[in-house]
Amino acid sequence: MNDKKNEKITSRDVDFAKWYTDVCKAADLVDYSSVKGSMIIRPYGYAIWENIVSVLDKMFKATGHVNVQMPMFIPESLFNIEKDHVEGFAPEVAWVTQGGNEKLEERMIVRPTSEVLFCEHFKKIIKSYRDLPLLYNQWCTIVRWEKETRPFLRSREILWQEGHTMHATKEEAMEETLRMLNVYRDLQENYLALPVIVGKKTEKEKFAGAEASYTVEAMMWDGIALQNGTSHYFGDGFAKAFNIQFLNKNNELETPYQTSWGVTTRMIGSIIMVHGDDHGLVLPPKIAPVKVAIIPIGEVDEVLDKIIEELKTKDISFTVDKTDKSPGYKFAEAEVKGYPIRLEVGKRDLEHEEVTIVRRDTLEKSKIRWEDAVSRIEELLEEIQKDMLEKARKRRDSMIYDAKDYDEFLEIAKNKNGFIKTAWCGNEACENKIKEDTTYKSRCIIEECHDENCVCCGKKAQYKIYWGKQY
Amino acid sequence: MNDKKNEKITSRDVDFAKWYTDVCKAADLVDYSSVKGSMIIRPYGYAIWENIVSVLDKMFKATGHVNVQMPMFIPESLFNIEKDHVEGFAPEVAWVTQGGNEKLEERMIVRPTSEVLFCEHFKKIIKSYRDLPLLYNQWCTIVRWEKETRPFLRSREILWQEGHTMHATKEEAMEETLRMLNVYRDLQENYLALPVIVGKKTEKEKFAGAEASYTVEAMMWDGIALQNGTSHYFGDGFAKAFNIQFLNKNNELETPYQTSWGVTTRMIGSIIMVHGDDHGLVLPPKIAPVKVAIIPIGEVDEVLDKIIEELKTKDISFTVDKTDKSPGYKFAEAEVKGYPIRLEVGKRDLEHEEVTIVRRDTLEKSKIRWEDAVSRIEELLEEIQKDMLEKARKRRDSMIYDAKDYDEFLEIAKNKNGFIKTAWCGNEACENKIKEDTTYKSRCIIEECHDENCVCCGKKAQYKIYWGKQY
Repeated sequence: MNDKKNEKITSRDVDFAKWYTDVCKAADLVDYSSVKGSMIIRPYGYAIWENIVSVLDKMFKATGHVNVQMPMFIPESLFNIEKDHVEGFAPEVAWVTQGGNEKLEERMIVRPTSEVLFCEHFKKIIKSYRDLPLLYNQWCTIVRWEKETRPFLRSREILWQEGHTMHATKEEAMEETLRMLNVYRDLQENYLALPVIVGKKTEKEKFAGAEASYTVEAMMWDGIALQNGTSHYFGDGFAKAFNIQFLNKNNELETPYQTSWGVTTRMIGSIIMVHGDDHGLVLPPKIAPVKVAIIPIGEVDEVLDKIIEELKTKDISFTVDKTDKSPGYKFAEAEVKGYPIRLEVGKRDLEHEEVTIVRRDTLEKSKIRWEDAVSRIEELLEEIQKDMLEKARKRRDSMIYDAKDYDEFLEIAKNKNGFIKTAWCGNEACENKIKEDTTYKSRCIIEECHDENCVCCGKKAQYKIYWGKQY
Repeated sequence: MNDKKNEKITSRDVDFAKWYTDVCKAADLVDYSSVKGSMIIRPYGYAIWENIVSVLDKMFKATGHVNVQMPMFIPESLFNIEKDHVEGFAPEVAWVTQGGNEKLEERMIVRPTSEVLFCEHFKKIIKSYRDLPLLYNQWCTIVRWEKETRPFLRSREILWQEGHTMHATKEEAMEETLRMLNVYRDLQENYLALPVIVGKKTEKEKFAGAEASYTVEAMMWDGIALQNGTSHYFGDGFAKAFNIQFLNKNNELETPYQTSWGVTTRMIGSIIMVHGDDHGLVLPPKIAPVKVAIIPIGEVDEVLDKIIEELKTKDISFTVDKTDKSPGYKFAEAEVKGYPIRLEVGKRDLEHEEVTIVRRDTLEKSKIRWEDAVSRIEELLEEIQKDMLEKARKRRDSMIYDAKDYDEFLEIAKNKNGFIKTAWCGNEACENKIKEDTTYKSRCIIEECHDENCVCCGKKAQYKIYWGKQY
């Protein structure tokens, strides 16, 4: 019983990248197969995704969206219709060239995203203003032929949702773009306990084919950024390319305005890298598949049964480890898996009518009368959820730096990881120079700023912007 | 307002195949795109699938299964490991040969089913008897390169679930095979209102690589069979091919036994073809996305609001059609969509405190005091669910024929559609002859039978079996 699961985890201070993959494996989240670049999402990892999907799908439906399922293949000619889009995606698509024993007349890509499929469909079903807004979402798998892959962060196959909506006016489309950005913020802050910065991508970093892209940016424990979701305003670019029109109330033809927005299993990567520690995963209670790990020590069935009964009544998910492994091994395993609460029900504690409760986020232990355990657990789950967000927010804020001039920027970039907040002139030349000098990329523009100077070129600024290294 | 939606539907007596596709289109279930052989599942169709998934996923979890997500690609060398399996699927797979700009060193198929992926994974994670049984399920899309396609019935892309389980003994694996067959029967009879026959496939018709395949067979309104789900017992064939072994309690290596089982969106095709009529779709209440279609006629807001409030309280899904279309048009549309109940709230009826309730399954109308409407709706939803199953069962049973000898078989097959129940010797030669002479294929073996003679060759029978034409 010496190979405690968490003893196999590299310390995050020693090698954060190694720590990350160790946790992914040790917590049974993923595994590899002979399919290069793809991962197996194991039941425990998939259960986290199912919980996220369940929360988000309700949010989508509450905001009037319906789910749909489009084909997974895109014929080359359809893919080629919107020029910027093709240029953006062509280098990273998988090509199907043969079906059964016959070579295809027209080869097809496996969808890397489905804008063109939705546009083709929208052209058929949008006729009048009565058909708008059209608020569609799709849960599916997409494929992008990445060279280097990491579990949840970058994979050739990605589980995601993609929203695609059409609106009669620019204003409505922009409203939708920002509404869904806020839905993502809500999900990430209030369920995943991830403090996020929302803002606009620069021209250079926006989605291929979009007029404007908005982003939800999280900072990992090591100060590196992860783009956790995007919401795009397309204007009428795709609609014009696909010749989508509708009759307005005056019976005149108009072109509608479009949005798209998506999040992926990458958010699970954020959860791991924001909350995890050297003992393993730490899951926010609201999306943890198992909220309480019960570890009986000795003959305690009578009390155990009563506690289990109460947990069931209150619909709190739990697991009971009755295997013949040692208590120490079981504690370690519960920590690796990131169960929010560990409940130790021991024969000796019970002599004093007590059980031991351990919070996974702080590893704090406390004893409590066993009859009060479940109501304490209920409270604690809420506290843990709140505390995890606050703890992550404090750490993130402590790694956000202001830089007034380029020397300061270079100094911070050289010595620290984190986000650097500066004024920026809006020119791609400065964006490129910063990236070249420091590997920092623009994360997002958060507001207009006209009374300061660009941190790079010193000319009059236009925006306040965050910079950071990224996964 | 003359183009009522159901006036575009071909009568099912005139052309059943045309009727089917007309209903699929008119009820907004599917649409086509430029992706040959694939369909778009529109929001109303997808909502039916979501409801089926929700019911079935709970049944899987209640029987101890967990969900997992495997890669969608299979490298050629992995696909080639089990010989029978490859031979069965090779003619109908899609090949990915290029990723980004580079030709792949090893080409890959898009999964037509995932046995080999699960086996490769199982080999890694199964070590001891403690790891068994391993009860996995996957919800995903598979691809089979069909030449002729029809919405929901046969498509190049199929939404489905595939269960894959591993067991320490033959007996447990066979128990699981039959347990999941019964889960399918439960789903189809008690939720989809489809009477089904369950039984065993013949050697000729079994799954490529299985030792035994079991099937859930439904009969469509026109007497044609649809295979609505299968459950396979693999024995240790795949396990041996993949060299999967576990240490038993005596610390000896053993080979485990395996099952797989699946159902697809094809079940939606069955729902349409068993329950639908010339007015359109008829949905069983338990999986109908919208249970009540409310059509207000005149100024009736006050009563309408009260009814809506009560429907919400009782969590009964509904839609209210307040558009400026004529009542007749709205009635027709509610019929096409197959909403189980139509509630007409008319100004004139309300003078007598009444509203009109119309059952979609029988089109029977009745008036009722508006205050009693919602409790009547609650009762009716249960009645409709029950009646739909019974009605379908009666029709099916009236199209099941016994044939004692081959002349009788030929006579029935020539003049009637339906299932023919006979004794059979078990020889593929007779199975082939029947198919050649009549196009009837074996549906399933339902029991042993040793006191009769084979309907085809006249020799001693081994089984009772159903024959039928199939979609």
